[in-house]
Amino acid sequence: MRYVITIGREYGSGGHFIGKLLAERLGIPFYDNELLLKISEKSGLSSDVIEEYDEKKEGLFSSGMNLYSADLSLGNKIFLAQFEEIKRLADKESCVIVGRCADYILKDYANVANIFITAPMGEKIARAVKYYGLDPQKAERIIKKKNRKRRNYYMYYTNKEWGNAASYDITINSKIGVEACVDALEVYIKNRFKLD
Amino acid sequence: MRYVITIGREYGSGGHFIGKLLAERLGIPFYDNELLLKISEKSGLSSDVIEEYDEKKEGLFSSGMNLYSADLSLGNKIFLAQFEEIKRLADKESCVIVGRCADYILKDYANVANIFITAPMGEKIARAVKYYGLDPQKAERIIKKKNRKRRNYYMYYTNKEWGNAASYDITINSKIGVEACVDALEVYIKNRFKLD
Repeated sequence: MRYVITIGREYGSGGHFIGKLLAERLGIPFYDNELLLKISEKSGLSSDVIEEYDEKKEGLFSSGMNLYSADLSLGNKIFLAQFEEIKRLADKESCVIVGRCADYILKDYANVANIFITAPMGEKIARAVKYYGLDPQKAERIIKKKNRKRRNYYMYYTNKEWGNAASYDITINSKIGVEACVDALEVYIKNRFKLD
Repeated sequence: MRYVITIGREYGSGGHFIGKLLAERLGIPFYDNELLLKISEKSGLSSDVIEEYDEKKEGLFSSGMNLYSADLSLGNKIFLAQFEEIKRLADKESCVIVGRCADYILKDYANVANIFITAPMGEKIARAVKYYGLDPQKAERIIKKKNRKRRNYYMYYTNKEWGNAASYDITINSKIGVEACVDALEVYIKNRFKLD
């Protein structure tokens, strides 16, 4: 049976690692930043342009979502290219896809499990300092800004509430540790898709 | 090790059954309406008065949370009695407690896992019609009203967002079935509290 797991996650929650480990346990591919690169090849946009756009989006979404911004046509072009790529992956193989509103893009597909990872602020700070090298003094501000950006991006494209239980099949707080989260999620997925 | 599981749940989500079955699997007591009765004994309020108040609360919370309502002193008296009873239970034994903002009441306790159960509207309707005998024509309106009441009650007492991933340790959508939810939650709890 083909199935897809989508993972939304707060910045600093460890959602990326959880998704990667879950994919390993299930023996299926994991798509995250690689996905962006694949898309850039398909869409004819260079990965430099996409990365630059991803940085600038913060401004777009935090400044009242200006629909007439010169950036938007590029934003929509990238979103649509990702949209097509994510559907193509879901049509082809079982996989784990992190971020990019994949839950929304695949909302009409059967066999999709949508997961969200959260964490207490103290743990997000510790993780971002340790793994992403953030300055401990500035970490909380940066994390809040990044998560505001993700929330706005999600709400802008999906019209659903980012991080609300009703928008997902399961949400989990990573404070119990990455391995323990993956244990629970693996059981959930195996039950859900009747895997052995 | 003593631990407590609190379960918040949408009306019609099957959260009560999930909590009961989880408690059975773990071999620990389950508290729900029974709790109210215990409290009524302790607080010297008759269970009739408490049940009547519970019905009336809808008006209180949906009409702009009027702090000067004549009902409020009774409401606070009941909340405080529940508060004490829930802490007393948590001090005494491992247990599952459904509803009543138990997650908030036990926020400073160690070894508390906070769970939230959601479900798609279609399934909430089917469940409420089947188990609670709601009129299929009126079910959606009644379910929305009851869940608005729970949301308001939770936000009023806890100042946290009802149903948001960040307010809980794990949330789960019961559309996969009660048993499958309990399977995943059981693994989560056993990992979390290092049960064998």
